[in-house]
Amino acid sequence: MSTEHPPTAKREQSVTEEVLASFSKAADPRLREVMQSLVRHLHGFAREVRLTEPEWEKAIAFLTRAGHITDDRRQEFILLSDVLGLSMLTVAINEPKKPGATEATVFGPFYVDDAPEVPLGGDIARGAVGTPCYVSGQVRSVDGSPLGGALLHVWGADDDGFYDVQYGADHSAGRGWLRVAEDGSYRFWTVLPTPYPIPHDGPVGDLLKAAGRGPMRPAHLHFKVVAPGHRTLITHIFVAGDPHLGDDAVFGVKDSLVVEAEYHAAGPAPDGTHPQEPWTSMKFDLVLVPDQDH
Amino acid sequence: MSTEHPPTAKREQSVTEEVLASFSKAADPRLREVMQSLVRHLHGFAREVRLTEPEWEKAIAFLTRAGHITDDRRQEFILLSDVLGLSMLTVAINEPKKPGATEATVFGPFYVDDAPEVPLGGDIARGAVGTPCYVSGQVRSVDGSPLGGALLHVWGADDDGFYDVQYGADHSAGRGWLRVAEDGSYRFWTVLPTPYPIPHDGPVGDLLKAAGRGPMRPAHLHFKVVAPGHRTLITHIFVAGDPHLGDDAVFGVKDSLVVEAEYHAAGPAPDGTHPQEPWTSMKFDLVLVPDQDH
Repeated sequence: MSTEHPPTAKREQSVTEEVLASFSKAADPRLREVMQSLVRHLHGFAREVRLTEPEWEKAIAFLTRAGHITDDRRQEFILLSDVLGLSMLTVAINEPKKPGATEATVFGPFYVDDAPEVPLGGDIARGAVGTPCYVSGQVRSVDGSPLGGALLHVWGADDDGFYDVQYGADHSAGRGWLRVAEDGSYRFWTVLPTPYPIPHDGPVGDLLKAAGRGPMRPAHLHFKVVAPGHRTLITHIFVAGDPHLGDDAVFGVKDSLVVEAEYHAAGPAPDGTHPQEPWTSMKFDLVLVPDQDH
Repeated sequence: MSTEHPPTAKREQSVTEEVLASFSKAADPRLREVMQSLVRHLHGFAREVRLTEPEWEKAIAFLTRAGHITDDRRQEFILLSDVLGLSMLTVAINEPKKPGATEATVFGPFYVDDAPEVPLGGDIARGAVGTPCYVSGQVRSVDGSPLGGALLHVWGADDDGFYDVQYGADHSAGRGWLRVAEDGSYRFWTVLPTPYPIPHDGPVGDLLKAAGRGPMRPAHLHFKVVAPGHRTLITHIFVAGDPHLGDDAVFGVKDSLVVEAEYHAAGPAPDGTHPQEPWTSMKFDLVLVPDQDH
């Protein structure tokens, strides 16, 4: 006891080395690589900012609160990853480099596994309020061949900026999946998306507020496209002209994903229906990359 | 749509720059500094290991599970910080550099706020099973002056390696706080600590297992010492000869904190009591640093 302490930098370095060594016995070399890199970078962060004990306690409390607000319908850790740009960085790292492919963007926290099937041309709004929007396009491979039978999962917020799951556990609207036609074409009705804030009544919202950042996302519609032999595409389409295209809280905007919404008076739509109210339409092709080209 | 994608490295860099810029408006310069450093290091990690989307999903699931297993009596995020060495690094960064001061170590997840007061010389075991252990020493300042009236919080595991809180929410044993004497001296009875595994039935346990690491901590007793005008000391004493001194799961061991436990036959103890069974004793002085010297 009461021996002279080693100098700070040396003590700090020896902790890091001990922890790195403790992961050197991992049977899976990838786990070893990931954990050792994580330790090096996390320790590098703590050393760089000279992390204080009250700040460490704040971080523990933040993660605890995030864990407790997370349930089947609310995913605060995904929001955290999103607002730190880690989600978009992971997309950027893994995105296929194939020219002509549709760019990917964040998955977000609002996908649910058990959305209903909707027939081609059907209405995924299923009660969600908003301006009717007819969305159509083609799903194809980068070589131009149509991907008939691909599964198109779609989800979006309503006119008030809420996803169904934000209304309660049993509410399902504004989402569904459909099988595209043999020629790769698809079409469905939904409501025109509007800008909305990410859930900001939890720790991530507090962080944004403290950072002077807004919680808004520009209007968008989510797609997940699954086709045999192709890399699954997770993306959005954004509505051109949205005031938040330049400050998306989760950094998800890419120019190639911004689409014009056309506005129409009540009257005949391309699918033979006659909406009794003004409606909109958006066109977007979804171009996937074969597994082996990724 | 379908424009040429920018090269991967450029796309990745631009995400990081966008996120760094988003934190540049934080009113609190320290928050700005901490968040920008965190973003740089987290992104550096993801880029270095080329983090895959399934790995990102695994990380989200890990944090979610950690959040859900955490409650008033179980703190998986502290365990995570501990096994990643982040807790000990934070201690190393903040530890006073004053020669002669008692070294600090990890706080751990088992401190509770509402432990009972125990009289000087009393028994903090309060029903915890194990070999009786008489612990004594002095609390003083680095200049040698006794810190009479300092508060000494003590907590430890029982002979089976469990803290009271691990038996259930209402169980309290093996912990307490006392006020040291005017000459800084302190003494209390407890049970001799034994090595034990950190809780390893959660995600942190799975991580240790996958990493080929053990969950054991060498036998130790926790102290938190609070004295007016002094930096609060959080430390352990470890029992000399413990087989796990070299592979503490949370990297908490420091040579200066390892103490010999003396073994005694049933019979008179220094405080005038006559234990009816064999007992042990440990001596340790706790030396604090004045606030202004830190």
